[in-house]
Amino acid sequence: MSTKFLGSSFTLRQPIFMPFKSSTFTMATCIHTPRTETPPHTNPKIDDDVFNNFARFYRPDSPDLVSCVPISEKRSKPFSINPDEKAFDLWQLMKEEARSDVDQEPILSNYYFSSILSHDSMESALANYLSMKLSNSSLPTGILYDLFLEVLREDQEIMRAVNDDLRAVKERDPACISYVQCFLNFKGFLACQAHRIAHNLWSQGRKILALLIQNRVSEVFAVDIHPGAKIGRGILLDHATGVVIGETAVIGNNVSILHNVTLGGTGKVSGDRHPKIGDGVLIGAGTCVLGNVRIEDGAKIGAGSVVLKQVPARTTAVGNPAKLIGGKENPIKLDKIPSLTMDHTSHISEWSDYVI
Amino acid sequence: MSTKFLGSSFTLRQPIFMPFKSSTFTMATCIHTPRTETPPHTNPKIDDDVFNNFARFYRPDSPDLVSCVPISEKRSKPFSINPDEKAFDLWQLMKEEARSDVDQEPILSNYYFSSILSHDSMESALANYLSMKLSNSSLPTGILYDLFLEVLREDQEIMRAVNDDLRAVKERDPACISYVQCFLNFKGFLACQAHRIAHNLWSQGRKILALLIQNRVSEVFAVDIHPGAKIGRGILLDHATGVVIGETAVIGNNVSILHNVTLGGTGKVSGDRHPKIGDGVLIGAGTCVLGNVRIEDGAKIGAGSVVLKQVPARTTAVGNPAKLIGGKENPIKLDKIPSLTMDHTSHISEWSDYVI
Amino acid sequence: MSTKFLGSSFTLRQPIFMPFKSSTFTMATCIHTPRTETPPHTNPKIDDDVFNNFARFYRPDSPDLVSCVPISEKRSKPFSINPDEKAFDLWQLMKEEARSDVDQEPILSNYYFSSILSHDSMESALANYLSMKLSNSSLPTGILYDLFLEVLREDQEIMRAVNDDLRAVKERDPACISYVQCFLNFKGFLACQAHRIAHNLWSQGRKILALLIQNRVSEVFAVDIHPGAKIGRGILLDHATGVVIGETAVIGNNVSILHNVTLGGTGKVSGDRHPKIGDGVLIGAGTCVLGNVRIEDGAKIGAGSVVLKQVPARTTAVGNPAKLIGGKENPIKLDKIPSLTMDHTSHISEWSDYVI
Repeated sequence: MSTKFLGSSFTLRQPIFMPFKSSTFTMATCIHTPRTETPPHTNPKIDDDVFNNFARFYRPDSPDLVSCVPISEKRSKPFSINPDEKAFDLWQLMKEEARSDVDQEPILSNYYFSSILSHDSMESALANYLSMKLSNSSLPTGILYDLFLEVLREDQEIMRAVNDDLRAVKERDPACISYVQCFLNFKGFLACQAHRIAHNLWSQGRKILALLIQNRVSEVFAVDIHPGAKIGRGILLDHATGVVIGETAVIGNNVSILHNVTLGGTGKVSGDRHPKIGDGVLIGAGTCVLGNVRIEDGAKIGAGSVVLKQVPARTTAVGNPAKLIGGKENPIKLDKIPSLTMDHTSHISEWSDYVI
Repeated sequence: MSTKFLGSSFTLRQPIFMPFKSSTFTMATCIHTPRTETPPHTNPKIDDDVFNNFARFYRPDSPDLVSCVPISEKRSKPFSINPDEKAFDLWQLMKEEARSDVDQEPILSNYYFSSILSHDSMESALANYLSMKLSNSSLPTGILYDLFLEVLREDQEIMRAVNDDLRAVKERDPACISYVQCFLNFKGFLACQAHRIAHNLWSQGRKILALLIQNRVSEVFAVDIHPGAKIGRGILLDHATGVVIGETAVIGNNVSILHNVTLGGTGKVSGDRHPKIGDGVLIGAGTCVLGNVRIEDGAKIGAGSVVLKQVPARTTAVGNPAKLIGGKENPIKLDKIPSLTMDHTSHISEWSDYVI
Repeated sequence: MSTKFLGSSFTLRQPIFMPFKSSTFTMATCIHTPRTETPPHTNPKIDDDVFNNFARFYRPDSPDLVSCVPISEKRSKPFSINPDEKAFDLWQLMKEEARSDVDQEPILSNYYFSSILSHDSMESALANYLSMKLSNSSLPTGILYDLFLEVLREDQEIMRAVNDDLRAVKERDPACISYVQCFLNFKGFLACQAHRIAHNLWSQGRKILALLIQNRVSEVFAVDIHPGAKIGRGILLDHATGVVIGETAVIGNNVSILHNVTLGGTGKVSGDRHPKIGDGVLIGAGTCVLGNVRIEDGAKIGAGSVVLKQVPARTTAVGNPAKLIGGKENPIKLDKIPSLTMDHTSHISEWSDYVI
């Protein structure tokens, strides 16, 4: 089955990277091209166009980030907000949230002052908070702060991703009550931002610093992401404990990954050996995806699965070994983006095998 | 199958909470009422009365906590010990254990003095030890200590639960050599007590502090329990790394949960979306229970299982997807309380599929 | 099936321990004895002698540690290097690597000086680094340093194992770029060495200190190894988060274990209740092995598996419940040592069930 992978379903105004330049991927050149190569066996009850139209308007830096209403109700929505304005707005909003939190809990005044209120930018606050978390007695906060701030100031793509990630967590996780709570309390968010800094250093050839950050993140947050891994925007690492992501893994935009998920390699071969995760994918808790396999756009992988093969776009794979819901020949196609709905169990729970 | 859930099998003298007041649960009003609605297909070789009679005398604050001998040998056992006396006794016992430990390892004198021997109550020692563990450079020990001590002094239900948890760990985990070792070294125990404090604050509407504690527990112990979750007494979180428990989860009394267990939600819906775990349940390592499903009293779930459906009382569910040992129509009924026996594999290892 | 377990396939010049002295194991007395009891159903296409010959020359303290080329190409290789010389060489090499790292990142001068360059031996550097990691405000670095250094200086078997572990990580993990990076950044390596110290103390009867170290390792590295567990040399704990190893577990030499692996007990019985892992075994991420079962030499267990039964030598077990690739009667035999190849998926990915 020849399936387009990444790029076809989600349009990004400012993509951080184009992960699939390799000739092994057929990149769609124009998303408005009619899909003439639609697989013949797709489940007839779901209209591909609904998903595609929705996806076309879906942007990681738009306020629509997490909406799951049908596209027909959203077409008139404008996309006029300047992303830099929005970044500024989000930081101001977080400061207001912080002031409100201090009003409620005056004993946390110093904590909020040093973490949020004393800073004049998100860059400074993030550099400070991460350096406080990742320092130890042989690695002073000051060295990390200077390093992190320099990277965040020079690489504005990271700050745009930070903003998208904050929105992703706030919108997708019903347990997240404010942006400032995400910033201060979600170790998956913090681990992801520390990785973005480490990846920047890795890409500059500063491998020693990058590996040191990876190690401290693994110790402090129990999240082990190799600095070589490429991660898109609008990422939710929910709960995050035990997540392991290998060196040559690539993760698209607007992906949601639960705790204890492994994107692992196999064998001692160097080179490209880890999974490639498309846009809008949801991966449930405890799942292992092993080897250089593609999980295509909008796919959902159930909790506790073991995946060693490609998963087609918008399908649901579950089990150990993972199989497609609906069968290999005619898998059920999702009509909503699973990373946004965070719906782990529909289709799965109706699957006959899951009757206890 | 209409099955009574919680309340029918275990009688608590001082229940911490009545988790299932919702009209969706049929609460048994009297445990002595004959069970006229016994399911027709229960395995005939196990006498329900044996289990029920045993359960009737089972109390989380009694010295019988961990016994698994048939009830016939235990009926004459008195239950006259005053729980407050017992709490006092346990603390004195822990101080004696601490002195003995210092005699063996004088280099730990200061450690035991600051952690145990300098305190005049379990409340003070626990508040101090947790605040030491959960503090960091922007969150001083003193603020946490005052907060924790206030909660522990005002909420004596927590202290009774602490006592029951200490007994649970000591009795059920063969690797636990003394109460003071459990208090000092078992991060599952410490994470559970920090959660009890966070839950108290959450219930008072002090959400900001509650979420801060949740985050620090997740970082320090790799245990992520939402402060909204309701957890009974006599809990063993064994090894504990990677445990995730969602906001609307409810856990009964005398439950044993291994590491990497997820009691997770599904979807972005707020509201009641997490599992309900009955009394006496045992959940093996790496298992995911997802959605608002009930795991009924005395059920056992094998390691590495994925559970999306209700599990009937005293049955054993294993696998991905989980199935009942003995089959759906006539599952084998357990005659002992699995959370107390900690027997993860009987029935399971005899199951034909597990022959390698 | 009567199968020889451990000792038959790998010859150690200086074994740390002889884990299987129990009469329940049939120890091979001479590895050159022809295997007259070869199972009748072994897959004919793999020549047992190739594996055995390779294994015969395989030594954990030799430079051949990680080679997987057929033995025919290696027979002429000399084994003349003195292990003590080699230990010295490795430490000198690490210091050189450290100097080179500082040249690249001068901001890390103090970090490398205090961690590596100020020490005159690996023992001192390791005692210092572990004590820095495992100390906290109530457990000063100094107490731990003195304790660790004393153990490492007196127990040279540990230092030989440290050397073998450093080589194992460097050779088997393509993400490991130097020995000093392994030493500084691999929490699985550090957790394993802290365990070796704790096991020494446990064996001396100093249980209180041993359990305290276990707890701190579990908090700091999220690796929970009971100090009673016996672990061989040349061990790779890759990523390591969530690893749990029980009190009576035994792990042979040259074993590779991924993150979230449980070697767990079952039941409340004290006594011998945990798995026995042979030499050269590879265990994939998220796998649970429960009970006193043997995983024989050179076996491979796929990610996400649940194993409750013995796994024969050189076979591959996968799934939940785990089954042998090739079937119970005639399982496919591996011709390479899986812990060294780190090949998690060959045979498995070709298995029909893994076709999505």
